[in-house]
Amino acid sequence: MATVTQTRDSRNPLDLASDYGDAFPSSRKAYVEGPHGIRVPMREIGLSDGHPPLRVYDTSGPGGVDVRAGLPALREPWIRSRSDVEEVGDRGGDRSQLIPEGLERTRLRARPGAAVTQMHYARQGEITPEMEFIALREGVMAELVRDEVARGRAIIPANINHPELEPMIIGRAFKVKVNANIGNSAVTSSIEEEVDKLRWGTLWGADTVMDLSTGKNIHETREWIIRNSPVPIGTVPIYQALEKVGGVPEELTWESYRDTLIEQAEQGVDYFTVHAGVLLRYIPLTANRVTGIVSRGGSIIGKWCLAHHQESFLYTHFREICEIMRAYDISFSLGDGLRPGSIADANDEAQFAELKTQGELTRIAWAYDVQTMNEGPGHVPMHLIRENMEKQLEWCEEAPFYTLGPLTTDIAPGYDHITSAIGAAQIGWYGTAMLCYVTPKEHLGLPDRDDVKQGVIAYRIAAHAADLAKGHPRAQEWDDALSKARFEFRWRDQFNLSLDPQTALEFHDETLPAEGAKIAHFCSMCGPKFCSMKITQELRAAAQAGMAEKSREFRERGGEIYVEEVQSR
Amino acid sequence: MATVTQTRDSRNPLDLASDYGDAFPSSRKAYVEGPHGIRVPMREIGLSDGHPPLRVYDTSGPGGVDVRAGLPALREPWIRSRSDVEEVGDRGGDRSQLIPEGLERTRLRARPGAAVTQMHYARQGEITPEMEFIALREGVMAELVRDEVARGRAIIPANINHPELEPMIIGRAFKVKVNANIGNSAVTSSIEEEVDKLRWGTLWGADTVMDLSTGKNIHETREWIIRNSPVPIGTVPIYQALEKVGGVPEELTWESYRDTLIEQAEQGVDYFTVHAGVLLRYIPLTANRVTGIVSRGGSIIGKWCLAHHQESFLYTHFREICEIMRAYDISFSLGDGLRPGSIADANDEAQFAELKTQGELTRIAWAYDVQTMNEGPGHVPMHLIRENMEKQLEWCEEAPFYTLGPLTTDIAPGYDHITSAIGAAQIGWYGTAMLCYVTPKEHLGLPDRDDVKQGVIAYRIAAHAADLAKGHPRAQEWDDALSKARFEFRWRDQFNLSLDPQTALEFHDETLPAEGAKIAHFCSMCGPKFCSMKITQELRAAAQAGMAEKSREFRERGGEIYVEEVQSR
Repeated sequence: MATVTQTRDSRNPLDLASDYGDAFPSSRKAYVEGPHGIRVPMREIGLSDGHPPLRVYDTSGPGGVDVRAGLPALREPWIRSRSDVEEVGDRGGDRSQLIPEGLERTRLRARPGAAVTQMHYARQGEITPEMEFIALREGVMAELVRDEVARGRAIIPANINHPELEPMIIGRAFKVKVNANIGNSAVTSSIEEEVDKLRWGTLWGADTVMDLSTGKNIHETREWIIRNSPVPIGTVPIYQALEKVGGVPEELTWESYRDTLIEQAEQGVDYFTVHAGVLLRYIPLTANRVTGIVSRGGSIIGKWCLAHHQESFLYTHFREICEIMRAYDISFSLGDGLRPGSIADANDEAQFAELKTQGELTRIAWAYDVQTMNEGPGHVPMHLIRENMEKQLEWCEEAPFYTLGPLTTDIAPGYDHITSAIGAAQIGWYGTAMLCYVTPKEHLGLPDRDDVKQGVIAYRIAAHAADLAKGHPRAQEWDDALSKARFEFRWRDQFNLSLDPQTALEFHDETLPAEGAKIAHFCSMCGPKFCSMKITQELRAAAQAGMAEKSREFRERGGEIYVEEVQSR
Repeated sequence: MATVTQTRDSRNPLDLASDYGDAFPSSRKAYVEGPHGIRVPMREIGLSDGHPPLRVYDTSGPGGVDVRAGLPALREPWIRSRSDVEEVGDRGGDRSQLIPEGLERTRLRARPGAAVTQMHYARQGEITPEMEFIALREGVMAELVRDEVARGRAIIPANINHPELEPMIIGRAFKVKVNANIGNSAVTSSIEEEVDKLRWGTLWGADTVMDLSTGKNIHETREWIIRNSPVPIGTVPIYQALEKVGGVPEELTWESYRDTLIEQAEQGVDYFTVHAGVLLRYIPLTANRVTGIVSRGGSIIGKWCLAHHQESFLYTHFREICEIMRAYDISFSLGDGLRPGSIADANDEAQFAELKTQGELTRIAWAYDVQTMNEGPGHVPMHLIRENMEKQLEWCEEAPFYTLGPLTTDIAPGYDHITSAIGAAQIGWYGTAMLCYVTPKEHLGLPDRDDVKQGVIAYRIAAHAADLAKGHPRAQEWDDALSKARFEFRWRDQFNLSLDPQTALEFHDETLPAEGAKIAHFCSMCGPKFCSMKITQELRAAAQAGMAEKSREFRERGGEIYVEEVQSR
């Protein structure tokens, strides 16, 4: 037996190259070349019979890299050439045994007083290599990228300490993006599992990944993740700050939070969720809710505020936070700590009060050239979704919106990737720039590998449906290529063009496993006699053959065929 | 080992009682009593700690019935008491060995000249027991049911030869309904499997079932299905008619089609899909499509029309079809044979030309008191969905719309229950009365048992999301009950209130299997320290305790707390 089929159990969980080949058997990495030696990776899907290949957006990152060495530092020359950064000196302390030497990096920060943010460059009129990269990736002009970033309508999350990332943009003029959450908790999972989930999530199409770890080895887990991530990494720094004070919200201090921000900034986190919009006076507005406060960050801050009876340090020190973030180019993801956690609580006073404050904070961040997006709900029935988008656009001056779903009903735990894909597609169409995925495990447990895949695919569907509805110039060519393959009975092409080729193939083979069925002009759904596509092809052939004949008849009958009436009328 | 866990393999596939108990471990059948001895089944979900049970709509039918005897004939006394039917004499011929004696029934039809349709009664001002049943089931006034049916805005598919069904209504003033397709094809499956899929589909919430069989034993399969179905059964009679002429569309004749209609009418089919709107002149409009004609019925009729170069017998004999249907109370489901099969073909001239003809045909059917709904697409990007609903309402005079999805992108074969649930939820919100499910196997193969479940649940989600968005009076109480349970850490109640309790429980138990975790005030997602719901509950308790104190402070400070400003602004 020379051929060994690689099973899930025997698979090296960190072997991305084999994952890529298994997931997309007819795809290869192709590169679009640009100025400054820029090479933008695309996934090129090979088709049969001389049909031209289709290139699609690719988030999977370079393959064949040892996770103990990390990805190549693609952006390093770009960052260094701007001459606005300096190296951070050794902070002392013992090196963690959990971080291999191969992952050690020199840390950078802005020179004193400098802003090193893409927004700063954009406002100066500068088109950075990151913007060039994105323009090629999205198929738009680089000037559009620059302009949207300068205006605050789009962000390029790209910490100067995360040179490994392949630049991407979040904004409503561009492809709708998907975020996947990973992260261990006190109850479960390990560093290796989280790195594996990162690579698995980006393989299937996650555009950014949030590391929401709250368990042990939170620093080390993050280091592994960032060094191996081709996509921007977001975090919620208050989680780590809380770990540092033993998990007691009341004991959080500005100083320890600030130190956490800097620690994560130097590691290379690309965006921070900051729940600075949770104001003391908004907390009583949640008192009569069905599900109170459901955001972890929101409830932590809420508790701190009530205990101290004052505004949180996130709000009172917001400008200092901006100063830290501009020194590394970390983007704000202004958290929605009071988002609704149930249909009953959607669009209530607490939620919208915070959204208005998010708008205020957005304007402050922009004054510091800090890129900013706003987080949105949550649980919202369909008829209330549009109001969320409209208010966000108005109050937050068109900063990118980044929503969690929204879930359009509460009654389907176990299927919340579906309840929320419905809302996500809709709000994406209305203008939301990035959709935070929800997995089937939402509300029930931490997602495992398969849940991550299910969540990412459901959200790639929602995002693509939104791109189609928005008329994104590159969206429909993918649908057309697949539908054409379907109509022409190019089964292999149909599978290879799908978001998940292997699953499509397996579903087909459950009923028609024979290789011959891959070229058959029918399938198991209708069988050969009832195949509408087969009949239509015959019909077209007949129509073409008969056209001359019919055309003559038509003239002979004075141009009045097709006038039969209902017999009995 | 006294306890034996029933595994899937050992399960009797036709044992509905055990399926019900397995699927909904904390539910029981409850009955709402009405006039005329009417008892409407509901599923009553028992909750813990004295919380009142929740009653939800139940499509699973009476349990504990031998499939070789069929369901009890609930409606028989109602039908007989109207004195407008007569028994059909023995048609001779040998009894099929595939139909057990216990399934034999006396066949009925209208007395000569009589209309026995619910629309006829409604127009006469009569509130039938079927309407009473539906009013209780939906929680509305019986007069509303009668009025909507009289007006043609709703239908009650209920063949007088299907007395076993529990009456239900399809119309936009009511709960959005879900149809599940089953049926064998020439390639696969058996009678037992189809009956099992019927019962499995209705267990999870299918409101109607279409038997789309095209394989062998088509008559017998249907007999088994109807005799065991508590929900209306729909068919596409042209499929069987085509089998009768050896699968050659050109050889179809009006006579053989008419005989097929009568055969199925006497068996008890509740609604017929009739593709009478596919006119000869519309067929060339599909010539430049990416996917041509994708409806089986549409392509069969298209081929017939072109071969004979005349309008189909469905169109030319439409009034005779109406006469047959009014004699059994079969509803029309006017097929959309030219529906788009790809994003590229959505809302094109062919599709809308047929829709307009569906409107004409609707008016003719109504002239015969025949209940009518209209089938709709298909593959439609989100921004083109609303136009479908608006044109249907206008051109078809608000007859119920019954759509397949629509699928909002073509690129995810293997996940089309999700691509289409997005469109289904949206069009349901806009006013579509029934959503035809799409399973994960769509485009790839025939759905098996698990696919049927996945399809029904995705569509129950879509339909419920639409009900919430439309403000259906009973929709939100379910969401509220579940969210309340979630917030109060009543884990068992949360599982039991979900659409699929067992899956929710299993997902939870993957990370926290201990029984104690079912009462824990946290879960594996965030762990105890980060549980927002736990923190919120503490916060509420603290807030209440501190209220008197704060209230005094408030007065002392002149009513001006909560006025802290951002420190550095």
